[in-house]
Amino acid sequence: MEKQNRSGTAGKAIRCKAAVCRNPGEPLVIEEIMVDPPKAWEIRIKILCTSLCHSDVTFWKISTGPFALFPRIFGHEAVGVVESVGEHVEEFQEGDMVVPVFHPNCRECRDCKSQKGNGCSIFGDKLVAEMPRDGTSRFKGMNGETLHHFLSVSSFSEYTVVDVVHVVKISSEFPAEKACLLSCGISTGIGAAWKVADIEEGSTVAIFGLGAVGLAVAEGARLRGASKIIGVDLNQEKFEIGKKFGVSDFINPTTCGEKNVSEVIKEITDGGVDYSFECIGLASLMEDAFNSSRVNWGKTVILGVEMHRTPLAIDTYFLLRGRTVTGCFFGGLKAKSDIPILAQKYLHKEINLDGFITHEVNFQDINNAFDLLLKGKSLRCIIWMD
Amino acid sequence: MEKQNRSGTAGKAIRCKAAVCRNPGEPLVIEEIMVDPPKAWEIRIKILCTSLCHSDVTFWKISTGPFALFPRIFGHEAVGVVESVGEHVEEFQEGDMVVPVFHPNCRECRDCKSQKGNGCSIFGDKLVAEMPRDGTSRFKGMNGETLHHFLSVSSFSEYTVVDVVHVVKISSEFPAEKACLLSCGISTGIGAAWKVADIEEGSTVAIFGLGAVGLAVAEGARLRGASKIIGVDLNQEKFEIGKKFGVSDFINPTTCGEKNVSEVIKEITDGGVDYSFECIGLASLMEDAFNSSRVNWGKTVILGVEMHRTPLAIDTYFLLRGRTVTGCFFGGLKAKSDIPILAQKYLHKEINLDGFITHEVNFQDINNAFDLLLKGKSLRCIIWMD
Ligand SMILES: NC(=O)c1ccc[n+]([C@@H]2O[C@H](COP(=O)([O-])OP(=O)(O)OC[C@H]3O[C@@H](n4cnc5c(N)ncnc54)[C@H](O)[C@@H]3O)[C@@H](O)[C@H]2O)c1
Ligand SMILES: NC(=O)c1ccc[n+]([C@@H]2O[C@H](COP(=O)([O-])OP(=O)(O)OC[C@H]3O[C@@H](n4cnc5c(N)ncnc54)[C@H](O)[C@@H]3O)[C@@H](O)[C@H]2O)c1
Ligand SMILES: [Zn+2]
Ligand SMILES: [Zn+2]
Ligand SMILES: [Zn+2]
Ligand SMILES: [Zn+2]
Repeated sequence: MEKQNRSGTAGKAIRCKAAVCRNPGEPLVIEEIMVDPPKAWEIRIKILCTSLCHSDVTFWKISTGPFALFPRIFGHEAVGVVESVGEHVEEFQEGDMVVPVFHPNCRECRDCKSQKGNGCSIFGDKLVAEMPRDGTSRFKGMNGETLHHFLSVSSFSEYTVVDVVHVVKISSEFPAEKACLLSCGISTGIGAAWKVADIEEGSTVAIFGLGAVGLAVAEGARLRGASKIIGVDLNQEKFEIGKKFGVSDFINPTTCGEKNVSEVIKEITDGGVDYSFECIGLASLMEDAFNSSRVNWGKTVILGVEMHRTPLAIDTYFLLRGRTVTGCFFGGLKAKSDIPILAQKYLHKEINLDGFITHEVNFQDINNAFDLLLKGKSLRCIIWMD
Repeated sequence: MEKQNRSGTAGKAIRCKAAVCRNPGEPLVIEEIMVDPPKAWEIRIKILCTSLCHSDVTFWKISTGPFALFPRIFGHEAVGVVESVGEHVEEFQEGDMVVPVFHPNCRECRDCKSQKGNGCSIFGDKLVAEMPRDGTSRFKGMNGETLHHFLSVSSFSEYTVVDVVHVVKISSEFPAEKACLLSCGISTGIGAAWKVADIEEGSTVAIFGLGAVGLAVAEGARLRGASKIIGVDLNQEKFEIGKKFGVSDFINPTTCGEKNVSEVIKEITDGGVDYSFECIGLASLMEDAFNSSRVNWGKTVILGVEMHRTPLAIDTYFLLRGRTVTGCFFGGLKAKSDIPILAQKYLHKEINLDGFITHEVNFQDINNAFDLLLKGKSLRCIIWMD
C-alpha cells in the first residue's frame, strides 16, 4: 500500500535535473535523470539548496581505485523537503524540512546508543557506497545507465533518495541556507572544538586550514574562550576573514623561512598549543599539527580527509611524552540529536552561521562553486535549486 | 657548610662497585668507580636493590647516534637509602628510604602543577642526558674517565647521585624489593590502565607484550573490572603467567595463520577492543594495537619505547572514525604524589606486586638478569646489592 503525496509523484520515478560528474576532475554537466522512488526506510527529498564541501572536491578528483566511481552525483551539504517516503518510514512525512547528513545515526545500535563517539555500528562502514541497505542506486541516466551516489546524500540533484539514518528533521521556519551549513562542514568544525577536543577557557589552539571547517573550529574555540587561536593557511586572504571567527594569530607557512610551522607555533605558545586541528587533508600537515601540540596534554584532532590516503607518520617518543591524536567525522556529533541543538543555538544567536556564506549561485552555475572553492575565494557557496 | 653524615662520607667521593657497560650489547663489567658527592638539589643514594627493565636493554643495545653513550652505568628501577644530600635539599635527609624515578616531577612548574599529564616542563626534556641541572656526570672510572649516567638514575651501582626531582621518599617499613617495582615498570602499567586509558568496568582490553609492563596493565585492567583482557605475545610461557594477572584470552601472532592479530582481536571482540596497549616497543605492533581498537571510541596507549625509532604509520581514515592514540611515560603518574598512593594500595592488598618478582640475583650476577629478560624467562629479577 503506497501512501500518495500531493503532487502525485509518490511511488513513481521522477524526471529532474542533476549535475552529473562524468569523469574525475571534469566540470559537472546538468542533465536530465530519473530518480527512483524511495524503498523501505528511505525518503525522497526535493533539494532546496546545497553547498560544496571540500570532501566533494577530494572525491571528484580521485581517478583510480575503488573510490573512483563515475558517472556520479556529488554533493552532501544540503537541505530539502520530503517529497515522499518509503515503507516503514515513521519519522518523516511529506513536506518535512530535512537536513541530510553523510554520517549515519540509526539510534538503535550499541554505538548510536552510547554516550561515547558518534559512529553507527550498523551503517558506519558504508561511507562512499550506494544506498546503504541494498547497495543499489536510485539514479539513472536517460539512457538507463546507473549513476552512482556519493556519501549517501548526492544533493547535486533536484531530487535525491536518502536513507532515514542519514536525515534529520528541522523546523520549516529555519532559514534553508543556514540549515544547509549544518549539514556538514560547520557542524564538523564546531563539534570538533566542543565535543572531540572539548576546549576549555584559556586554551591555546592551532588550526591548519582556514576553510569553512577550520573557521568553524575557530568559532567553536572562540565561544569556549580560547586565549589564542592560531590560523595556518597558504592563502593570505583567509587571514582577514579569520579574524571574524576569532583567529588571533596567522601563519603563512611560505613566510616561515627556515623554520617549520610547528616551530613557529611552539615559539609563540611557549612549547605548543593545547589543541591543534588539521582541516586540510594532507598527512604532512597532520604531522605539523601533531608537532605543534604541547607535550603532556596536547591533543591533535584530524578533520581533513587525506587526499592521497598517505598515512600519518608519528614519532612515538612524542606520544610517550603525552601527546594525543584523534579525529572525527561530523565533529563527533550525533546528527539526529545534535543538529537540532546547533539550530537552536543559531536562533538564540549563540553561534555565527551567516559569516560562512560568502557566495550564492543558481544550480546551472554549480561549476562556479567549484571554481570559487578551488581558488580559495569562498567559504561556503550556496547553490540554489530554483 | 657541609652537613656531615654518620659514615663520614658526605662531601667526599665514594669508591664503590658498579656494573659498567663499556660497549653496546656487551655484558656489564663489575668495576670500582668513584661517585662524586651530590651537588645542589642532588642526593647520593646507597642502592639496596635494583631490577632490569626493558628500557635498559633497549638503550644498552643502541650502538650509534646520540643515544649511544659508553662507558655507561645503566639501571633505573631501584630503591635505596639516602647517604648524603647536596645544598638546598630539604625534602630528603640521610637515612631516608627512597625510590628514584626516571621521569621528573619538580612540583613547581606549570605542568607539574597541572592536573593534566605528568611531564615536567623544566626537567622533562633531559631524559637520557647526565645530571639534569649541570649536564655533567658524577661517575668516574679509576683512571679518571667519565662514565655516563642513564635516565637520571643509573642504579647499577652501589652508590648513585640523583636530582631531587627524580626521587620519591617511601616509608622505610615498606619491603625494599616491592618499592623497587614501583620505580618504573609496574607503576607504568598500572598508571596507564588507570590514569591514561581510565578503563571502565566491562571494557575490553588488548595488551601487546606480556612483560612486566604489559602484565601490570592487565593487573590495572582486572582491578577496574575489564570484561576481557587479551594478551598478545610470541612467548607461549607468558600465557600461563598472564592468567594470574587477569589475562583472559591469549594470542600468539605466529599461530594466527593468514590473519593479522588485529583481525583476530576484532573477531573475538565484535569489532575491536575499547583499549589497546603496546608494551613491546615496535612500531609495527603499535600499528596492530591501533588496528585492534574499535572505531568510535577505541583508544590505543603506547608504552613501548620504539627500539629503532621507527615512526608509527596511521591510516588517518581510522582516526576520522573516532580512534585515538596516545602514550605516556611512567603511566601518566606524577611520581611524588602517586608512588605513595600505589605503595598504600599494596599495603592494603589492593594491588598485586609480589607476582612480578620471578627471580633474585646478587649484584655480581647482574648479567644473569639480562639473560633472563632477553630469553623471556623473567618478569622482574631483583638484583641485590649486598
Ligand atoms: N571529518 C569530517 O567529517 C569532515 C567534514 C567536512 C570536511 N572535511 C574535510 O575538511 C577539510 C577542509 O574542508 P573545507 O570544506 O573547509 O575546505 P576548504 O577548501 O574550504 O579549506 C581548505 C583550506 O586549506 C588551505 N590549504 C590548502 N592547502 C594548504 C597547505 N598546504 N597549507 C596550508 N593551508 C592549506 C586552503 O587555502 C583553504 O583555506 C577537507 O579535507 C574536507 O574533506 C572533513
Ligand atoms: N613508557 C614508559 O614509561 C615505560 C616504562 C617501562 C618500560 N617501558 C617499555 O615497555 C616495554 C616493555 O617493557 P618490559 O620491561 O615489560 O619488557 P619485557 O621484555 O619484560 O616484555 C616484553 C614482552 O614482549 C614480548 N614480545 C617481544 N617481541 C614481540 C613481538 N614481536 N610480538 C609479540 N610479543 C613480543 C616478549 O616476549 C615479552 O614478553 C619496553 O619497550 C620498555 O622500554 C616503557
Ligand atoms: Zn563535507
Ligand atoms: Zn547506529
Ligand atoms: Zn623502565
Ligand atoms: Zn615540573
